This record gives sequence, C-alpha cells and structure tokens, in this order.
Amino acid sequence: MKLEYKLKMTDFSSKARLGEISFNGQTYETPMFMPVGTNATVKTLAPEELKEVGSGIILANTYHLWLRPGEDVIKRAGGLHKFMNYDGPILTDSGGFQVFSLAKPKDILAEGVKFKSHLNGDSLLLTPEKSIQIQETLGSDIMMSFDECVKWPSTKEYMEKSVERTLNWAKRGKAIKKDNDQLLFGIVQGGEYPDLRKHCAEELVKMNFDGYAIGGTSVGETKELMYKMVEYSTSYLPEDKLRYLMGVGDPIDLIENVLRGVDIFDCVSPTRLARHGHAYTWHGKINLKNHQYKEDFTPIEDCSCYTCKNYTKAYLRHLIVAEETFGSRLISIHNIYFLHTLMAKIRANIKTHTLEEFKQEFIKNYYGGNHE
Amino acid sequence: MKLEYKLKMTDFSSKARLGEISFNGQTYETPMFMPVGTNATVKTLAPEELKEVGSGIILANTYHLWLRPGEDVIKRAGGLHKFMNYDGPILTDSGGFQVFSLAKPKDILAEGVKFKSHLNGDSLLLTPEKSIQIQETLGSDIMMSFDECVKWPSTKEYMEKSVERTLNWAKRGKAIKKDNDQLLFGIVQGGEYPDLRKHCAEELVKMNFDGYAIGGTSVGETKELMYKMVEYSTSYLPEDKLRYLMGVGDPIDLIENVLRGVDIFDCVSPTRLARHGHAYTWHGKINLKNHQYKEDFTPIEDCSCYTCKNYTKAYLRHLIVAEETFGSRLISIHNIYFLHTLMAKIRANIKTHTLEEFKQEFIKNYYGGNHE
Repeated sequence: MKLEYKLKMTDFSSKARLGEISFNGQTYETPMFMPVGTNATVKTLAPEELKEVGSGIILANTYHLWLRPGEDVIKRAGGLHKFMNYDGPILTDSGGFQVFSLAKPKDILAEGVKFKSHLNGDSLLLTPEKSIQIQETLGSDIMMSFDECVKWPSTKEYMEKSVERTLNWAKRGKAIKKDNDQLLFGIVQGGEYPDLRKHCAEELVKMNFDGYAIGGTSVGETKELMYKMVEYSTSYLPEDKLRYLMGVGDPIDLIENVLRGVDIFDCVSPTRLARHGHAYTWHGKINLKNHQYKEDFTPIEDCSCYTCKNYTKAYLRHLIVAEETFGSRLISIHNIYFLHTLMAKIRANIKTHTLEEFKQEFIKNYYGGNHE
Repeated sequence: MKLEYKLKMTDFSSKARLGEISFNGQTYETPMFMPVGTNATVKTLAPEELKEVGSGIILANTYHLWLRPGEDVIKRAGGLHKFMNYDGPILTDSGGFQVFSLAKPKDILAEGVKFKSHLNGDSLLLTPEKSIQIQETLGSDIMMSFDECVKWPSTKEYMEKSVERTLNWAKRGKAIKKDNDQLLFGIVQGGEYPDLRKHCAEELVKMNFDGYAIGGTSVGETKELMYKMVEYSTSYLPEDKLRYLMGVGDPIDLIENVLRGVDIFDCVSPTRLARHGHAYTWHGKINLKNHQYKEDFTPIEDCSCYTCKNYTKAYLRHLIVAEETFGSRLISIHNIYFLHTLMAKIRANIKTHTLEEFKQEFIKNYYGGNHE
C-alpha cells in the first residue's frame, strides 16, 4: 500500500500544479489541504465525517503518539490506520516541531535534541534515527525527516549552521530508513536567506527523497516573507515530487502558495478555530460567539456541508457559549469542508489558468478588498 | 404533532407493561430509556447518531435553556425540534430539579422559588406558571409540572407540607396551560411515606394529567427504598397513562422499576460516565482508563454499535487519557446503545413473561452474582 504521486499539469502563468495521489485503490487530487489529527483523531470528528467533507491525507503527530500511547502500542494495534479506523493516507511529522515548541527547555546536540516531555517532565532525546524508527513503527504512509525548527528571526550565521544540521539529520534518517512502502520527505529550511534555501533544497534533492517539505515558514514572519521563502524553496525542487508546505492553512496562504508551486498543506486552524467559535465563510472569518448571531436563524453560509444544511448560526452560537463540544464538531465540519472546497476551486482554476483572477476575486470577497 | 400513548400489554407476574408511543408518523415502544440533552444537545452526539443507536424521546432541560439561550430565541428558531434538528419526541423537565440542586441559595415561597442563576448569580423567580410558559415557548412534546424536589431524608412533617405545595403548583401549572398539542405530566412526590405517595398520586389523578412522573427518588436513598417509593406511587396511577421515573438510569434500576410499572426513564449517566471513560458491558461497568486496557485491541464487548464495530478499548483508552472528545463521543454511543438494547431485552421479556428470570440472569452477569 504505497502512496504514488503523479504530476498532471503545470500552469503556464504561474508555478501552480495539478497532480494526483493514488493510495489503497483511491485517487486524490492535489493541491490538497490535510486536516491534523494530533492524537490519532482529528479533534471531535469521526473518520466517516472526514471522508464526507472530502479529506484525503490526514496528519498525525509523531511526538504526541510517541509519548502517548507509545508507538509500540499502535504497532501492536495493527498500525495507525487500524488504530484510528482511517483507511486514507496518513502523514506523520518528525516530532521536531513539537520538540522545539511544546517541549522546552532543550539542548540541541549533534546527536539530536534533549528535551523534557510536556506531559510529565521526563528527560527525553529525539534523534533523526529515532524519529524515523517511531514513524516506521506507527506505520504512516508519508514520514518526515527530523529537522531543526528555527524561530524567526535568526541571524544568517545561526541559520547556516542550522541548515547543515538539518541536512546531516536528513541524511542520517534516510540512511536507516527501511526499504518498505513508507515514503520519506526531506524538509527545506534556510529561513529568509535565498542562498541557504537553495543550498538546502539542492542538497536534499541530491539525497533523492520521495517528496519535499518547506519548513520554517509560519514561525512569526510576515506573509510576504513566507511567500518569498516558499518561492526560493520550490525553485530548486524536482517537478515530479510532492511539495508540502508545513503548518500553513490560512485561506489566502493556500492560494498564494499554490501559485508558488506547493501541492499539499496542513494546519490545525480549522479545528482550533472551531473550538473558539470561529467559522470560515467566503466573506471572511466570523466569530459565532458574537451577540449578533444570537437570533440569526440562517446557516453559516450558503454551503453544502452537513452543518450548514442542518443548523443555524444561533444554534452553533448557543452550543459554543454553553461549551458543548457538539458545537466544535459542527463548526470543524464546516471549516474543513470550506478548506477542501477552496482547494477544489483552486484546482478548477489551475485547469483553466485563472488562478490569479480567482485569487483577486477571493481577496475581494474574503477581505472586502482590504488585503495587500 | 401530538404524542399519543397506548398501553399494549401488562405482565401477569409483575406490574411490567408494554406500550407504544406514536409521534410524527413514527412509533416507539415502551418501556424506554430517554437520553438527556441538557443544552439542546445530547452531549457530543448528532441527532442522526441518536436515531442510529435507537433513541426515541430525548430530554431537554428547561432551566438551562431558559437561562441560555432563552426560550424566546428557541421559539423564534421555530421551536426546540428545529433548533436542535431532532424530529423525534422531546420532553422538557420543569426546571424544578435544577433550581433545587444547581442554583442555591433559594427561598421557597408559596408563589414559587427564588434562586440565583448558577451562570451569573442573577436573582430569579421560577413559579409553576412560569415553568409552563417557558416549556410552551420551547415547544416540547411532553412538559412537566413544577414541583418541590426534597432531599432525602426529610421529616414526614416537612414532606406533608411539601406534597401540598407540589399539588398546588401542579394545579396552578395545569390551569394556565394552553390547549395545544403539548402533553403535561404531574409528578408524584411524598418521599418514603406510603400514605403521602398515595395522597399525592390520587390528587394528581383527579386533576387528570396526560401522564405521571415519579419524583424524589434517586436523591440519596438506598435502591431498596427507591423501589418501594416507586411501588407506592405506581399503585395509584391509571393504567392508560405513561409513567415516568425521573433521573434513574442504572441498568438494574431500569429492570427493577419496569417490574414496578414504570414506562419511561431518563438519566445523564450514559453520557456522563462516557466522559469519565466508563462503559457499560453485560458483565458490569468498566473503566477504560485502567492500565489493563492499554493494549486491549478488542472492542468494549461483542456489540453491534458503531463504536464496538470500529474501535478497540486501547484506542478508546488513548482518547480518554489524551482528553480527546472523540473518546467521550464513541463511549456515549456505546453506553446509550447499551441502555436501549437493555430496554429492548426488557420488552422482549415482558412479552414472554420472563422479566424476573431475565433480571436474575442480568444480575448474575452484571454483578457477578454480588447484587442484593
């Protein structure tokens, strides 16, 4: 059960690409948004609901599952797919991002990263080899190389050293990877320095990964800088491999980065926003907790998702205010459906070479013309 | 859309009854367990899931909905069914129980009960008339009379006065009730005093309610005393009306009280237990948080519910330990399905006049023979 990617078409007026993923007898189109299931569950949702809203690949977090319930438990359960009852493709991250963000304080060594568990304070060491072993044990379909996630801004001097470390870790992880159906992606780092992005991408490509991710964006920089970093990075990546922009899910960022050649995205935002009562609409994000929705007996918007077909803003507001998790569930369904629908529109507009026009139209509606 | 009840059969060896409820083109069999949807949502579950596990009538709490979002909001939404997207029958309580339990301190006056909102401390007054008006505004199918819920134990002297108050309140509520499709039930109080239960039941029956509830059990007394109070109460209730035992959901109590002539039950326990990782099984309740389930890759039990068909104890344990609400949702599905299945078995055994034998068998399995 190996995931296969095929590039179908590249836009002539932008770097946007259409592609197809085959997995387990199913095909999925790219560009694609991937919902995040940190603890082997996309918060509040059943696998059937993910399918219904149009999800393909979903994410699971290696760091979280390593700590709890432990990768061996999941292996003995028959692997991550069986454990969580999801038969679509699953991508696991390397654990790196969590080690650098959740689990402070840390010691960055040549060997790996020493840190304390955010759950119980246990001292732990995560290395490139260990990360691959955990991901192999979990049994995901796409694994990520362990990399250093550097906060923005950082000096070029630091970033140079960090890129070397990331390359070294990528090589070590690849070296011990088993010859099985799991894909392994390298991660392009290098911050806002074009020459470092180029260097990192080129070195990774020499190692011949199954796909490439772009890391170190969405770490506090401006959107313009993010787009530049993506632009630098995709320029040096091969056409025939998947390109994954990590941790990015703001609707406009999906469009902008597809225009720069990205195929797949992940972000916790649709479910996290839902828990706080925020819903995407084609006319911008709305906060359902607002008093104005108390007696608004219309759906979030004119939309074909389960939530919009059956529930009003007034009901959703009531559930969120009363802290009823059915509210998070209903808004999560809408938000993920919204992002999948956005990706479908993006794909349709790549086909007709109109993505730039679609972007302008989207901005006009979503931001009321106030973007850029 | 009026709910109709028809008694179909009474057991000859016990007071157990089989009946049928017709509502909105559907029929539902009694005895029945009713899941509780305090805030117009049965915690974590969608209406479709309630249907799938076999739910018929569900409850909503008048006190909670009065305070938030307010009964007028729900009326303007088109009523409770439309607001929460549930087309089966809905029963609302009177708010009395919450006023006496959640919302202390209180002043019990002839007029009604003064109390402070548990949400914001506002001083409020709930009267029998107000309770009916709120329930009419909500648009439930079965309304309950406002009654005094007395903590156990209480002196007979106090209980005598309290029963008079409850009867007076029941009469006042009935007097202002509109002539519409909503049913109104009276509530038999009287604590553990047989003569007071008799008096209360007889006076309510004279007022000719659409059905009768038994209140003031499950307030701290022993199970044996609860069964006696139910026995006292049902003896004086008419055969052709529904009998509802409030707030009782422990499996053995469902069986014991069906044997004493009860038709419908409600309790928060299946969803509340689920949130704490507890699941019913035919061999007793289990705590899925226990370490022994960490690598138990079998379902909760051999059961046809969605949860048992698709998920293992190890996964459920992981979700509950990681505080993922999908865990509460999956266990809630199983627990409610379990109680509905228990009621179906109870009904089957009433038909064959074998409920007493079924009870003995149930006790042997559920308690390992250690009950009574």
